[in-house]
Amino acid sequence: MVKDSYLVGLIGAGIGPSLSPALHEREADRQGLRYVYRLIDMDALGVAPDAVGDLVRAARDLGFDGLNITHPCKQLVIEHLDALAPQAEALGAVNTVVFEGGRAVGHNTDVTGFAASFARGLPDAPLERVLQLGAGGAGAAVAHALLTLGAGHVTVVDALPDRAADLAAALNRHFGVGRAAAAGPDGRMAALLDGADGVVHATPTGMAAHPGVPFAVELLRPGLWVAEVVYRPLETGLLRAARGVGCATLDGGGMAVFQAADAFRLFTGREPDVGRMLLDIAELAGAAGAAGAWS
Amino acid sequence: MVKDSYLVGLIGAGIGPSLSPALHEREADRQGLRYVYRLIDMDALGVAPDAVGDLVRAARDLGFDGLNITHPCKQLVIEHLDALAPQAEALGAVNTVVFEGGRAVGHNTDVTGFAASFARGLPDAPLERVLQLGAGGAGAAVAHALLTLGAGHVTVVDALPDRAADLAAALNRHFGVGRAAAAGPDGRMAALLDGADGVVHATPTGMAAHPGVPFAVELLRPGLWVAEVVYRPLETGLLRAARGVGCATLDGGGMAVFQAADAFRLFTGREPDVGRMLLDIAELAGAAGAAGAWS
Repeated sequence: MVKDSYLVGLIGAGIGPSLSPALHEREADRQGLRYVYRLIDMDALGVAPDAVGDLVRAARDLGFDGLNITHPCKQLVIEHLDALAPQAEALGAVNTVVFEGGRAVGHNTDVTGFAASFARGLPDAPLERVLQLGAGGAGAAVAHALLTLGAGHVTVVDALPDRAADLAAALNRHFGVGRAAAAGPDGRMAALLDGADGVVHATPTGMAAHPGVPFAVELLRPGLWVAEVVYRPLETGLLRAARGVGCATLDGGGMAVFQAADAFRLFTGREPDVGRMLLDIAELAGAAGAAGAWS
Repeated sequence: MVKDSYLVGLIGAGIGPSLSPALHEREADRQGLRYVYRLIDMDALGVAPDAVGDLVRAARDLGFDGLNITHPCKQLVIEHLDALAPQAEALGAVNTVVFEGGRAVGHNTDVTGFAASFARGLPDAPLERVLQLGAGGAGAAVAHALLTLGAGHVTVVDALPDRAADLAAALNRHFGVGRAAAAGPDGRMAALLDGADGVVHATPTGMAAHPGVPFAVELLRPGLWVAEVVYRPLETGLLRAARGVGCATLDGGGMAVFQAADAFRLFTGREPDVGRMLLDIAELAGAAGAAGAWS
């Protein structure tokens, strides 16, 4: 069925600066679709994370076609859905809800989004041993994507050791024993980096609200690849240091674009022009020069 | 403030065939606005009329800019609003809600819409004595509009005598004693029409779901003007008979357009092109030839 208009939104806390409305609406404009993307900010509404169920039901009743879901609701939303796509079920997290004939179906385009961005931006990167920093929601999605792409082994580091251990255990259950391990942030970074082909950064460090770098950048060496999940700014301190050393790098804009593109496809049934969306995010994130990593 | 997108909707029961989405979205397209108009049908949702408060709050929370409200909620919605515009307060009915910085303000564009349509379509019609059929929601709005336009006296007829009496009493309180009276549907139509300059029809009779004419059309006479509120079809049996006799007529499309245009102005702060919207409704209502009444 060709619909004549689309209404979607993003539910989360503190989402005012999100680029999703612009990414979706620009692509819809290019395709000639009537498309409104609304931010539904729980902080602005003054509601707790467990209000997500009421907001999802309200969105369905008021004619939304779908929703993106972000922190702190990606797990909480699951009990309010009618069905889960396999990727979302495996990860235990949903970032996209599609309303289909009154049913709410959960998907996860963070996984597919990171995988597509990595395959495009670092197609020749060795994946035998990957070090990943961050075992939160983004980290879980990225680790699933890496192992789906064929990574041999992923070591997960997190400031919360239990969270890292839980993620590693879940990855071993899903992908097979011996594919993942956890490590604490206890000063062993030099040894962990020594044995790694590449490192993925999936913590908030480097965002405008969390300035800095996630570890001593003197430990970077040529030949290591470095992938970043943060995309505001596109060029984080970590990426700048890695490029200075001569590492191959992947900034966070690609994951942001591909997860949006995959959600757009789920909402509309139409194929987005990812190349144009990558130009959009370079412009929107205010650092067009840093977009070179994908091109 | 210039907004870059608009999200509005209509709350009511059995509103599937409404032309409001098309009327609003076509005008928005001409103005280059991103604009989605959603139908929120209480019948389809399976909720009772008193759910209107929850739906209005949900719409505010999910980022709607405003709502139209129709049967059976135009009165029920009032207790859920933060403020009323004078016209809505005088009428005791709201057909348009605007969200302004978290506050919900009620307006009534049925009154202004009928007044504008009448002034455009029957500018020279004598208004000393007007007979009005129907004292429901549309009837109340039309009677307010007629007396605001300077009608000397309005006689209200309704199948429910109490409803007619209540409306006449409210009109006399608001516009001054002696401006309105009630009459029952007891066969006195010939006498009532004899003393009238014109007649306004504001019951559902003549709509597709309520076929027929509201009184014996043999009672029509040249010199009487006839205004219709029903707009699907644009040419009702009553209007066809009236034109056959030589009466000046006004179909219901003008009221439908002007109430939509006034709501569009409230939602966007922009001036709609009413001439284009009149062409739209003629096309949408599937009877372009009948649009001549306004032109």
